[in-house]
Amino acid sequence: MIIVLKHGATKAEIDHVVQKIKEHGLTPHVSEGKERTIIGVIGDDRVIENLPLSIFPGVDKVMPILSPYKLVSREFKSEDSLVAVGPASAGVKIGGKRLHVMAGPCAVESLERLMTVAEAVKASGATILRGGAFKPRTSPHTFQGLGAEGLEHLVEARKKTGLPIVTEVVDTRDVELVARQADILQIGTRNMQNFQLLIEVGQTDKPVMLKRGLSATIKEFLLAAEYIMKGGNQRVILCERGIRTFETQTRNTLDLAAVPVLKSLSHLPVIVDPSHATGKWELVAPMAKAAIAAGADGLMIEVHANPEEALSDGEESLKPPKFHAMMQELRKIAAAVGREL
Amino acid sequence: MIIVLKHGATKAEIDHVVQKIKEHGLTPHVSEGKERTIIGVIGDDRVIENLPLSIFPGVDKVMPILSPYKLVSREFKSEDSLVAVGPASAGVKIGGKRLHVMAGPCAVESLERLMTVAEAVKASGATILRGGAFKPRTSPHTFQGLGAEGLEHLVEARKKTGLPIVTEVVDTRDVELVARQADILQIGTRNMQNFQLLIEVGQTDKPVMLKRGLSATIKEFLLAAEYIMKGGNQRVILCERGIRTFETQTRNTLDLAAVPVLKSLSHLPVIVDPSHATGKWELVAPMAKAAIAAGADGLMIEVHANPEEALSDGEESLKPPKFHAMMQELRKIAAAVGREL
Amino acid sequence: MIIVLKHGATKAEIDHVVQKIKEHGLTPHVSEGKERTIIGVIGDDRVIENLPLSIFPGVDKVMPILSPYKLVSREFKSEDSLVAVGPASAGVKIGGKRLHVMAGPCAVESLERLMTVAEAVKASGATILRGGAFKPRTSPHTFQGLGAEGLEHLVEARKKTGLPIVTEVVDTRDVELVARQADILQIGTRNMQNFQLLIEVGQTDKPVMLKRGLSATIKEFLLAAEYIMKGGNQRVILCERGIRTFETQTRNTLDLAAVPVLKSLSHLPVIVDPSHATGKWELVAPMAKAAIAAGADGLMIEVHANPEEALSDGEESLKPPKFHAMMQELRKIAAAVGREL
Amino acid sequence: MIIVLKHGATKAEIDHVVQKIKEHGLTPHVSEGKERTIIGVIGDDRVIENLPLSIFPGVDKVMPILSPYKLVSREFKSEDSLVAVGPASAGVKIGGKRLHVMAGPCAVESLERLMTVAEAVKASGATILRGGAFKPRTSPHTFQGLGAEGLEHLVEARKKTGLPIVTEVVDTRDVELVARQADILQIGTRNMQNFQLLIEVGQTDKPVMLKRGLSATIKEFLLAAEYIMKGGNQRVILCERGIRTFETQTRNTLDLAAVPVLKSLSHLPVIVDPSHATGKWELVAPMAKAAIAAGADGLMIEVHANPEEALSDGEESLKPPKFHAMMQELRKIAAAVGREL
Repeated sequence: MIIVLKHGATKAEIDHVVQKIKEHGLTPHVSEGKERTIIGVIGDDRVIENLPLSIFPGVDKVMPILSPYKLVSREFKSEDSLVAVGPASAGVKIGGKRLHVMAGPCAVESLERLMTVAEAVKASGATILRGGAFKPRTSPHTFQGLGAEGLEHLVEARKKTGLPIVTEVVDTRDVELVARQADILQIGTRNMQNFQLLIEVGQTDKPVMLKRGLSATIKEFLLAAEYIMKGGNQRVILCERGIRTFETQTRNTLDLAAVPVLKSLSHLPVIVDPSHATGKWELVAPMAKAAIAAGADGLMIEVHANPEEALSDGEESLKPPKFHAMMQELRKIAAAVGREL
Repeated sequence: MIIVLKHGATKAEIDHVVQKIKEHGLTPHVSEGKERTIIGVIGDDRVIENLPLSIFPGVDKVMPILSPYKLVSREFKSEDSLVAVGPASAGVKIGGKRLHVMAGPCAVESLERLMTVAEAVKASGATILRGGAFKPRTSPHTFQGLGAEGLEHLVEARKKTGLPIVTEVVDTRDVELVARQADILQIGTRNMQNFQLLIEVGQTDKPVMLKRGLSATIKEFLLAAEYIMKGGNQRVILCERGIRTFETQTRNTLDLAAVPVLKSLSHLPVIVDPSHATGKWELVAPMAKAAIAAGADGLMIEVHANPEEALSDGEESLKPPKFHAMMQELRKIAAAVGREL
Repeated sequence: MIIVLKHGATKAEIDHVVQKIKEHGLTPHVSEGKERTIIGVIGDDRVIENLPLSIFPGVDKVMPILSPYKLVSREFKSEDSLVAVGPASAGVKIGGKRLHVMAGPCAVESLERLMTVAEAVKASGATILRGGAFKPRTSPHTFQGLGAEGLEHLVEARKKTGLPIVTEVVDTRDVELVARQADILQIGTRNMQNFQLLIEVGQTDKPVMLKRGLSATIKEFLLAAEYIMKGGNQRVILCERGIRTFETQTRNTLDLAAVPVLKSLSHLPVIVDPSHATGKWELVAPMAKAAIAAGADGLMIEVHANPEEALSDGEESLKPPKFHAMMQELRKIAAAVGREL
Repeated sequence: MIIVLKHGATKAEIDHVVQKIKEHGLTPHVSEGKERTIIGVIGDDRVIENLPLSIFPGVDKVMPILSPYKLVSREFKSEDSLVAVGPASAGVKIGGKRLHVMAGPCAVESLERLMTVAEAVKASGATILRGGAFKPRTSPHTFQGLGAEGLEHLVEARKKTGLPIVTEVVDTRDVELVARQADILQIGTRNMQNFQLLIEVGQTDKPVMLKRGLSATIKEFLLAAEYIMKGGNQRVILCERGIRTFETQTRNTLDLAAVPVLKSLSHLPVIVDPSHATGKWELVAPMAKAAIAAGADGLMIEVHANPEEALSDGEESLKPPKFHAMMQELRKIAAAVGREL
């Protein structure tokens, strides 16, 4: 941490800051420049991260040097983390040379509809089945998901297809139930800073797919992952899914540069959800290709057998034949960047 | 709802849309222009809000006409809602001519510290005591609040000062406990779209102060309030507290125009939190004055007896004498806009 | 400037940076911490601002300490600047106890319409007449202003009312003409970083009102003002007029906290334009009041005798009676914050 | 255009709107619903785009149906535009199967340095040389470019390498000079809405590369291109180069979804500048690959022989060997999406 003093800060003010730093077991290095005095803090200054040094008399600003997260960082673990999903027999590991595509309907609507999609996406090469049972919806007047019944349909679909399942959990009270049945617990965008929920899934033994919040910085995104890892759960998958900007032609703005940035700062795998990011099915394939080209470890894609009848997010869902065609194009991009799909 | 068809949409495509609208019991009005055909939907089209009409063949775009919220709207209830807080004897009603200031520390740190601030803010004219017991923190490595113990300190402070108390609830499992003890349940920025939590507080008999999400549009903010009201709880207070933008000189960008906009769209009272919005104590007084001038019904202000020692948000906390001076200035602004403080 | 080295930076890498700093006549202070080595640069490091030190081998990041602007800063000039407008006889000085309101139509449409508004706003207390002759319009298919003819109408209106005039200049080739006739040169939002235009108006002897760019940070805003002052023109007035955010209920988001922030960083006067910021006439009065309460030195307000017929920005224009009523309310707010209007 | 009336609008109010529409030669279709009356306007309603119908008594909101641009739209011209650059002998056409890469230094610093880079990028497969002579810089205290001298160096480099040159023009007074010498006129981000400059380059006979503004919506971007085309210049190339968001890990947020969106709305070619978008050289290659995968027609890349010594944007410049390696990777991606490089 670097503390920059105001032009004209008095000796008493400097001493006050120095004293406070020492109280916390850290070593201050005072360096008097012509224009400004600065104080460098030696030691792990995360212990004083909380201290509002910027309001101490004579202080102009405080600049942190160390990143506020530890467990998720490349400095903590330099090699890429591989997150194993489902039974070892499924052989699904996210973060390695092989890319993984999670596909399925936005919401589980019925077992029959789910099975149609599950079999189709498996045939096209998806390795994980997605489907929402507990749905967070912006309006209370729209379809809220089938809940526990939806979860049972997913379990049934896994039994029939062998595909591990990923589904969202939205309430601390449901974590135990969902963790018992799903292979990956999804934390949705709107819950990225629902810290109680992060703490709770951090205590399960299932992988967690954490979606970036609508207006979360990369730093905040990694801190949310840190909450999960701090609880002991090492299997976290990051998911870039678009951020909120002024542009309205797409539902959100997919921040693909976040993929290489996240992979440089963290050892965790990173996947991309182009369906929610764009909100338009025509944009899913180009953005899926771009995501793979940018270095993503996988994708999450919405597929629906009859989008016109979808109870949620029909606008952005691909029909199975379109999904199939996209998967074939993705294989070429994967090969071009030295990956497999 | 207006459905705009693509240039060159076929009769079969138009009929398909018309048919679908009729299936839902609504009446389509087809109007063929020179460049485009448009279909107006007559009736309460919220029933087809969910239908992805924009992907129907031949459809260019769908434009909603009715707002998606009902209970919170001025159309539903034209007069201003007055939200009574605490025992009737306290006489605190938010939304009328009299402004109310909620003040206190960001986090409850100890009973002693809390009492010092509680007595000071009461003496300066605050009518509600704020204090965080359950704290949502961006980093898992920082102070997380005293929890249930903090809640007891607040209850004790209420007993001694007579000030009703407002405190945040962050977990569905805590709603019953907090609703039993607090006078206002606060839903924080990061939980504005934690829909399970909204549903839960919507079933309590305590007023709820809902803070706007970091990147929530005004429409989403009102839909979150709608979740609470749909559960039966009519006593919702909206709180503008800054949104996320590209500017970094302030922690967030206080969107004061949201105050008159919210008051025109909704009957609910609107207060402003200049402390969290700016993140700097020097900016609290000017923004508090601006908020009152813009028509806010009250304020939420962080006050700490010794900000240098605060475990959370010391940067933006006012010391009691500064708070006192600000309250005197605010009374002049209140009078200038025909309000009382 | 502080240079933070990567964990594990070699001695050769450190020496390379140290050497480069010395080459530019500055003194490096190397401080080796347990986790990181940091180098503090002593001296006016603006000379190496351009140097891409962040890509030097072993460097993690570079953090500037001094602000990149000088002439506009409080450090350069501690007392508030008063900008005199028009002939000394007009007695208009912006930045002092007395507030000034610039009012008039968005675009000059005809001499007759202009005179109607000019006389009305003068009668209500406006001290400067605004009106666009050269109009920057988002679409090439909309009214582009009367150009030189509009300028003559403004001059005529000044002659009749005695009000100094402010009008926008949008092309370096027009600066001489506009500077000869107008009392204040306006640089519009879309030209805030049209550096050639800034340089050109910096060489005139007329005050310049610089509007904040749609997505300009406060730092960039001050650097744009620095361009003007560097040319020798000391009379710069800053104008906050809303920034672009995700919110669509208002045309832009008025960033009122920018007012006290700008006034703390700079000695220049700051005015606010609530008309363009909100894009809705109903929001002009509440935001004008809030601006004064926040400490603005003046306002810019669009007034049109018949907004339904306005060729530009009719949505946000006040009719003269509404403007008159607002001015009376503003006087109360001004008095409440110790100002005059 | 659809005009939605307020709940309870009177007949007189409706008639007033109807009358106004007829005055402009358009046909209003009034449709009275249970909750709202709406008026559809038949005909090319761009003639009343300027009319502030939203403030007419009884009007709730106005929703445009036609896009405000014409010449740039797919509806105006359905097939892709191919923009020929340089002499026919060079054979450079942007917008077809073959991708084009514009590469070179951010700023022209000397003929020698320029030649080194020009020859290197040509050898690696770049087909156009970029280099800034007139530099728009955020701070007046940094290097401002060599101006006309830089332009001469570019011409010299073209003579020696045969590569057509692209360079920025920042002042209406320079358009003639730059148009005489350069092969493509670049309009930079900060001048995207410098309408006088757009009008001026619209009257030249050279292709124009228009960069998206920092906070420009796709609609505004296309309207800026419309300004150029309206002047008679059909050869416009659009360039996505990142938008401003809250994220600070990258200089801007590259909006790659804009590529397929622009190509669906417009017939103009679209290229991507990953150097300015990210501001970090490590991110240039992954984002360049993603851009090609997303369907871009070309790239603009900053290359510098010795970034540590660059006078501008050294942080994001690739050294020639890195550029060479990237070009080889890009060829694989190009092939994977059926393009050539």
